[in-house]
Amino acid sequence: MNDPAFEARIASLRARIETVLDRALALPDSATAQLRAAMRYSTLDGGKRLRPILVYASGAACGAAPELLDAPAAAVEMIHVYSLIHDDLPAMDDDDLRRGRATCHRAFDEPTALLAGDALQAHAFEVLATAGPASMPADVRLALVRELAAAIGTSGMAGGQAIDLEAVGRTLDLASLENMHRRKTGALIRASVLLGAIAAGVGSGARHAALARYGAEIGLAFQIQDDVLDVEGSTAALGKLPGADAARAKPTYPSLVGLEDARRLAQAARDRAIDALAPLGSAGGELAQLARYVVSREQ
Amino acid sequence: MNDPAFEARIASLRARIETVLDRALALPDSATAQLRAAMRYSTLDGGKRLRPILVYASGAACGAAPELLDAPAAAVEMIHVYSLIHDDLPAMDDDDLRRGRATCHRAFDEPTALLAGDALQAHAFEVLATAGPASMPADVRLALVRELAAAIGTSGMAGGQAIDLEAVGRTLDLASLENMHRRKTGALIRASVLLGAIAAGVGSGARHAALARYGAEIGLAFQIQDDVLDVEGSTAALGKLPGADAARAKPTYPSLVGLEDARRLAQAARDRAIDALAPLGSAGGELAQLARYVVSREQ
Repeated sequence: MNDPAFEARIASLRARIETVLDRALALPDSATAQLRAAMRYSTLDGGKRLRPILVYASGAACGAAPELLDAPAAAVEMIHVYSLIHDDLPAMDDDDLRRGRATCHRAFDEPTALLAGDALQAHAFEVLATAGPASMPADVRLALVRELAAAIGTSGMAGGQAIDLEAVGRTLDLASLENMHRRKTGALIRASVLLGAIAAGVGSGARHAALARYGAEIGLAFQIQDDVLDVEGSTAALGKLPGADAARAKPTYPSLVGLEDARRLAQAARDRAIDALAPLGSAGGELAQLARYVVSREQ
Repeated sequence: MNDPAFEARIASLRARIETVLDRALALPDSATAQLRAAMRYSTLDGGKRLRPILVYASGAACGAAPELLDAPAAAVEMIHVYSLIHDDLPAMDDDDLRRGRATCHRAFDEPTALLAGDALQAHAFEVLATAGPASMPADVRLALVRELAAAIGTSGMAGGQAIDLEAVGRTLDLASLENMHRRKTGALIRASVLLGAIAAGVGSGARHAALARYGAEIGLAFQIQDDVLDVEGSTAALGKLPGADAARAKPTYPSLVGLEDARRLAQAARDRAIDALAPLGSAGGELAQLARYVVSREQ
């Protein structure tokens, strides 16, 4: 992150997605003020916005105008936020702090947090199916819905969380840990990369396959780095308490292979992600920078 | 329900949706056995299946073959089941009994029930976007996704549940109670009717508008009758404890206008539903029978 142009680009994408989310969640309805406030509270003003940034970067690499990418970018972030809200609930991780602020059920209450997550999932699909330029063909929109839905069900995010639940207090081998992470975090990150490509009209072919590989590897790199930061990080940088995984006896890369090897595995996944970009030629430059950023980040 | 042909038709639709759901939830994945078991437990072998029956009946009234209707029928039932699982959670209604059996979080555990609901919502959209005959045009599939998503977000089901939460212990006027019910239960029932029409290629026009009105009124009639049955019913017939709403100080039609007037309001909504079917001519006969069934049912 010592490239000012790259940093400026990330900052501008963060500002763009903030505006897009703000507009997407400006739901006019006084009868459900508390629910809408909870959805906005958890979605706006926070987060790294990695997933929407990947949508914009992948879409740009495939030649799409940013207007085509706003809806998928908003959808993946809403899905991410819904998963955080539900993960933080007392029945799950029982976390008090998220992105440096009270978690949704602490700032509001449990039923409202449950509903806010549920409604954000529905809203993500609504945005994907309706928002953006009317010129986007129906089969492209439908492919977006299909990709997102597949990434967050039992084969993807929800399945990964279920594996995570069953793994608490048990020892996983490296293959099982990787399977869990590829689904729990990786599937939505991979889908973010693919949604950008699909919105750009790249729904199949060599570039699509390259981006699918890139997305899977950057997703894995991201999660390993997350595990590393949970050991090394500070509350100030993370916006949540470090050491939380270890305290819950959750299997992590550092607990399984040690901190140094975990770092090496993250770097190896990063390198595979960058290698996968070859078919995109020079258009893959920004995505390569993002892969490096994901592994060097400190929060 | 004294028409044997109608009863046989309902029974055959229930058998059909059971098979469709069983297949849709045969997710091959040993790593998430518990999650899949919970999804199947709550979805299969139970329920009135009103929503899928409405998809089939509405689709048939618009001339669609049943094969076109399986995916939307499965999707609306999965959404309904997800909402029941989350409603039953300790943070919400804290119910032990549903459809005559232990609720999902009692039969499994809270985190699994939470995830099962989340995954069922995602799976509903996946089924809608992918299942069924490849010949179904992308714009029809997309219209299905759009209709369902709009019906279950803040403007629909989740919004209605939020209003319900905020209403506990307070007195609502009749307009607010109707608004709550039209969203909490009514929106998904109306969407079920519309999904059948959309899958049949009736995405707009006079028949679509007629079915939208029918769906809204039958949804309201259903919910008022639900309130009535909560006062009158037996545990054996309901599969849950009667009087639960009153015990929670939830506003209901009987508590607001008395049992007799509640019954009359349900019948008035039923009559408006049947009147709305006029543009369909004789093709609306089965839907009219369903409207009568909804108000005369005892469970």
